[in-house]
Amino acid sequence: MKASGFHTRHLVVVGLGLMGGSLALALRDHADTITAVELSLEARQYALDHKIVDHATDDLRAGVSEAETVILAAPVRAIQSMIERRIGSYLRSNTLLIDIGSTKQDICEAMGRLPVGIHAIGGHPMTGKEHSGVEASDGKLFRGRPFVLCPTRRTTPATRIRALNLVEAFGAGPFEMEADRHDHLVAAISHLPYILSSALVATVAQEGKADATVWELAAGGFRDMSRLAGQDVQMMGDILSTNTQAVATLLALFRVQLAMLEAMLISRDDQKLADFLRPTREARLNWIQHHENGHRNGSK
Amino acid sequence: MKASGFHTRHLVVVGLGLMGGSLALALRDHADTITAVELSLEARQYALDHKIVDHATDDLRAGVSEAETVILAAPVRAIQSMIERRIGSYLRSNTLLIDIGSTKQDICEAMGRLPVGIHAIGGHPMTGKEHSGVEASDGKLFRGRPFVLCPTRRTTPATRIRALNLVEAFGAGPFEMEADRHDHLVAAISHLPYILSSALVATVAQEGKADATVWELAAGGFRDMSRLAGQDVQMMGDILSTNTQAVATLLALFRVQLAMLEAMLISRDDQKLADFLRPTREARLNWIQHHENGHRNGSK
Repeated sequence: MKASGFHTRHLVVVGLGLMGGSLALALRDHADTITAVELSLEARQYALDHKIVDHATDDLRAGVSEAETVILAAPVRAIQSMIERRIGSYLRSNTLLIDIGSTKQDICEAMGRLPVGIHAIGGHPMTGKEHSGVEASDGKLFRGRPFVLCPTRRTTPATRIRALNLVEAFGAGPFEMEADRHDHLVAAISHLPYILSSALVATVAQEGKADATVWELAAGGFRDMSRLAGQDVQMMGDILSTNTQAVATLLALFRVQLAMLEAMLISRDDQKLADFLRPTREARLNWIQHHENGHRNGSK
Repeated sequence: MKASGFHTRHLVVVGLGLMGGSLALALRDHADTITAVELSLEARQYALDHKIVDHATDDLRAGVSEAETVILAAPVRAIQSMIERRIGSYLRSNTLLIDIGSTKQDICEAMGRLPVGIHAIGGHPMTGKEHSGVEASDGKLFRGRPFVLCPTRRTTPATRIRALNLVEAFGAGPFEMEADRHDHLVAAISHLPYILSSALVATVAQEGKADATVWELAAGGFRDMSRLAGQDVQMMGDILSTNTQAVATLLALFRVQLAMLEAMLISRDDQKLADFLRPTREARLNWIQHHENGHRNGSK
């Protein structure tokens, strides 16, 4: 791991799921004290028992009042609500506030209305795991992965430096961009894929009503294509409803590609079909090679 | 492994890729002699060197002339062409002829025009592997997986028994059905997913022209959803062009589901959206549980 300039006296992680637990583990050596704010007693107890955090409370105000760095690791709507309704008045001036919500425009706008003096910046680590919950926490989850940073009206040059140092401490690669650009890009690579996966499963489920054998025959291709449909509905509903415009745009663009494929298929123009599929295949192969190399090399 | 009644004097596998090699390995103890027919010298040499087969030739007529059992393990169009143009006159009466092509209607129709006396039946093992080529051969590839059998006009009751014994020798679970039903089901779980994966990659590639960062941020969700787009274009083109009607039907059904999701999204009807996504998620979770249990237990 690279040497990192990030150190904080008191880190507070709000939300103890896979992400919150992993953030705490990754920053173990970069914080004097780590406190978790989490409503679930079981999650708090697990994190204390496994020394993921030093202190845990269900009281947001008490938890963050002495913080130097606060990371909001809750679902998008919960993050937004904390920023809009409460946390501004609980934080000391000069606190670094960062979130890891999956959409950034609404959150960054809310951050922009926080009291002057709070160092607020939007964040989104592009990583994840099959399993959720604090039990799946992994301090290496962010290594070699992109970590998007989105400026807000409460992001000063000093905020930016602190956030970049934080990203470096995670072993992640920083990508600084405006929130709307982030939301458009993740609509393409994350939210559209989720919708396609769900619509595919819904289609197969309809087929299954007429002929249940469809489920018996489904194999590896369907497994991969249906995985995202198994994600938490509340979490994904939050994400989609805070990124409606970008997702609708990407859906429209997707339909163009799908319609072209369909026209070639129905007209039995095998040559055109192959001419469409070949560069698409190349694009995928190039990406996976780059992606897996990036992963192997750890930090970019 | 269960005891199997299948034994053959002389097995011929036509086509030495992942599937052909795996079929030969799986039947090692069920055949006195195994011959491969394959145009590639390298593949033949590899299979001989690794004792996957006993003999290898590039001459279809010479290869199959003494066969008791012939398995056609080539791409769909190549199988169809062999059946239509040549193999009927090369085979001895009473030979069991089975194929493993991914679509069954065209192949089974062609089989129905073979000389009377040839025991022909369509087959499709619902399995696969990330890697292709004879080097990836795996004798356990079929264990615990479905193996579809589709009757033809050259399928007698005796043909059926021989084919069922063959499937048992693979450790696979037989699913007997008409070719058109097979083609409709695989359109839903295999060909539609391929088209969606390709259209998704094409959409992201279009986005990438305006903002190449989209490739940098793509993570696990996109990896799964784009994998099928990396499949061999010639192979998939064959499959799609021999299953146009079913694929077009499934595309139309998919668009209905997609349009419903889109309407809920754009109208910001979060409740309806959740009501749609929840049973979809359940269907996926139920399937994966069943699928992985089936896999663990080996033969069903």
